[in-house]
Amino acid sequence: MPNGTNQIQIDGNRLWESIHSYAQIGATAKGGVKRLAFSSLDYQARDRFIDECVEMQMAISRDEIGNIFATMEGSEPDLPAVLVGSHLDSQPTGGKYDGALGVLTGLELAKSLYAAGKRPVRTLQLINFANEEGARFAPAMMGSGVFAGKLQLADMLAKTDSDGVSVQQAIALDTTGQYPARKERPIDSYFEIHIEQGPILEMESLPVGAVTGAQAQRWYDVTIIGSEAHAGPTPMIGRRDAGLGAAELSLAVEAIALEHGPDGRGTVGVLVPSPMSRNVIPGSAMLTIDTRHPDEDELGEMKQKLRVAADEIENRRGLSIDIKEIWHSPVTRFDAELVSRLEHFAAERQIGCRKIWSGAGHDAVYMASTGVPTVMVFVQTKDGISHNESESIKKEDAIAGCMVLCDAVLERLFRAED
Amino acid sequence: MPNGTNQIQIDGNRLWESIHSYAQIGATAKGGVKRLAFSSLDYQARDRFIDECVEMQMAISRDEIGNIFATMEGSEPDLPAVLVGSHLDSQPTGGKYDGALGVLTGLELAKSLYAAGKRPVRTLQLINFANEEGARFAPAMMGSGVFAGKLQLADMLAKTDSDGVSVQQAIALDTTGQYPARKERPIDSYFEIHIEQGPILEMESLPVGAVTGAQAQRWYDVTIIGSEAHAGPTPMIGRRDAGLGAAELSLAVEAIALEHGPDGRGTVGVLVPSPMSRNVIPGSAMLTIDTRHPDEDELGEMKQKLRVAADEIENRRGLSIDIKEIWHSPVTRFDAELVSRLEHFAAERQIGCRKIWSGAGHDAVYMASTGVPTVMVFVQTKDGISHNESESIKKEDAIAGCMVLCDAVLERLFRAED
Repeated sequence: MPNGTNQIQIDGNRLWESIHSYAQIGATAKGGVKRLAFSSLDYQARDRFIDECVEMQMAISRDEIGNIFATMEGSEPDLPAVLVGSHLDSQPTGGKYDGALGVLTGLELAKSLYAAGKRPVRTLQLINFANEEGARFAPAMMGSGVFAGKLQLADMLAKTDSDGVSVQQAIALDTTGQYPARKERPIDSYFEIHIEQGPILEMESLPVGAVTGAQAQRWYDVTIIGSEAHAGPTPMIGRRDAGLGAAELSLAVEAIALEHGPDGRGTVGVLVPSPMSRNVIPGSAMLTIDTRHPDEDELGEMKQKLRVAADEIENRRGLSIDIKEIWHSPVTRFDAELVSRLEHFAAERQIGCRKIWSGAGHDAVYMASTGVPTVMVFVQTKDGISHNESESIKKEDAIAGCMVLCDAVLERLFRAED
Repeated sequence: MPNGTNQIQIDGNRLWESIHSYAQIGATAKGGVKRLAFSSLDYQARDRFIDECVEMQMAISRDEIGNIFATMEGSEPDLPAVLVGSHLDSQPTGGKYDGALGVLTGLELAKSLYAAGKRPVRTLQLINFANEEGARFAPAMMGSGVFAGKLQLADMLAKTDSDGVSVQQAIALDTTGQYPARKERPIDSYFEIHIEQGPILEMESLPVGAVTGAQAQRWYDVTIIGSEAHAGPTPMIGRRDAGLGAAELSLAVEAIALEHGPDGRGTVGVLVPSPMSRNVIPGSAMLTIDTRHPDEDELGEMKQKLRVAADEIENRRGLSIDIKEIWHSPVTRFDAELVSRLEHFAAERQIGCRKIWSGAGHDAVYMASTGVPTVMVFVQTKDGISHNESESIKKEDAIAGCMVLCDAVLERLFRAED
């Protein structure tokens, strides 16, 4: 048997039903999910996850940034624990699988162990990381960042959403109940399964990928200042239109990412001209830039080119352009031994698998940054589309990914010696 | 005397103080005014205008779109009335003079007549037109458009702001009191003084302009549909980024207006990518386009070029771009005889004046469209800047413009025969 003498069988149908049942919480008309971090819908999903874990006698704990831990104590509780996690929060118009697949695969593994009456040797701890998306409260991966000690708790609690509500205020509305703080304990390894969110596995007709690491990222907030004026009497020449500066900078971001292709990425997701009136020339604009590259040097070059492009635009258009880097996530390499175990179990089950690079950030990236052996499984994503209500994966691919991940997790869980 | 035997003296200091006193209603920290149509601040300004008129025994009436009329009955009330108007509403970050100068110049004229105990031969009617700016409820010049019969009352009452509040609901909150409907009466002429909102008078060091007409305008609402996807794993090539389509279209609007220079204008004032998340490629975007030209044919060519540019962008980027024209205001020519009277009185008072073309829409444009002899005076505007909190005019220029306008109005008011 793939996972040795333990013969734990995960129930693929139960996993698939569970995913679609959780997707009802915050379901959108277009078939997606809106479950923003620390919203009442997020709390509904968290509640349900806790209830399911409590039914299996798992112990619940919580930390100050709102991460939830569900613990199935091993027969040798002093051995380092095996962690499986991801997130239940979503983008404003997100899909059913991004995040939920990982949390519910962990849950499915616990259900399979519980149903089989098998107590693992090492402790299994499931994690729902808080605010992975960063859509309501930037930065993303807030829960795992604080857990890993890479983000300061106090700084994160002070972050606010667009309505001025702070993380601290939103966490205070937590309806999932009072739970003790997570007990500090040594960690053996961290596992996470996630949709690919890219087109590579689909192009190669592979259900799963063994993720070798994650691209470096740099995020920026940009403020452009020009001069407001009436759209009618103001001649075209001499205008200081901040909206057009933002348009040119957006196109420069694309051009720079293309120059650093095929792995470079550059995206302007947020753009707000001001004062937002149809007959007023925008006097200012704010926009966000998200850049990524697997090579730190190239990402640094992209940063320099961005400033050069901004300088040219501000001089030519009489604007001032302030570019502030608000986040840098360095290149991450996952545990090579765990990657090869994933490939081993995929081969054993005759599931098509390749090594793959992550273009997105994940909670696993922060976990890896602590030195904990970490790995991820990716599942083929239809058209590479995620952060979109039409996000879709195949049932058989989800189950294949779950099996490969669980095989590797079970191997660690039942390993007696360190 | 410039205005003949009547010897009406307007009080320039009183006018200037009045303008700055009204500017306290909705005053912004940066020295501007925020008095959006039908907001409580707009109602405060309207209330005050009504109170000042009532003190002079003027009769107040109101129509269903919220225009306010203050009437000083002439000694021959059957003769057509002379109208003086403008608007008290402002842009979200507007200035102290745009609109208010016109309403308060009319008020100053009434005060001067009242103080001198002079009853005009013809009836003087002051107008505060509702929602000239169109910033909260599009289209602009709503009040004068309905008054002129060019906009349908029912359609306009159904228009909503970005919070979904309708004009009808906002008008129902009117705190300025119950007044009878305006009595239908023949109109002799309509006069309006306004800031230039452009750089021409300043460049030529002229305090005032006699406005010969207004540019044609076409306004568009644009919707761009692409495909939302995650900013990290999605390769640059093959993206269908609606935000970049919007950026290119914004730059095309500028290029087209420049091709039709120096009089062509093209502005993107509103731009909203969606879903507005920093790590999501925008799947859609909406934007507004405001185009203007004194030549209808050229404005039509600009429209065609806009569609050609959109076609090219949508094909190259895999987007769909819908451009809907929401408003067309044809070229307007003001009354040539009144223009020459303005020039005559300016010369008599040795005030520098030139004929000038209006790049902006004004309530006077709708008034002219009804066939009523109409004219405007423009006042030099600092740096040509308006729709901006830093909007500024010189006191002496405001008074000069008021004098020229009032001379011409008084000539009509005291003319006994038709």
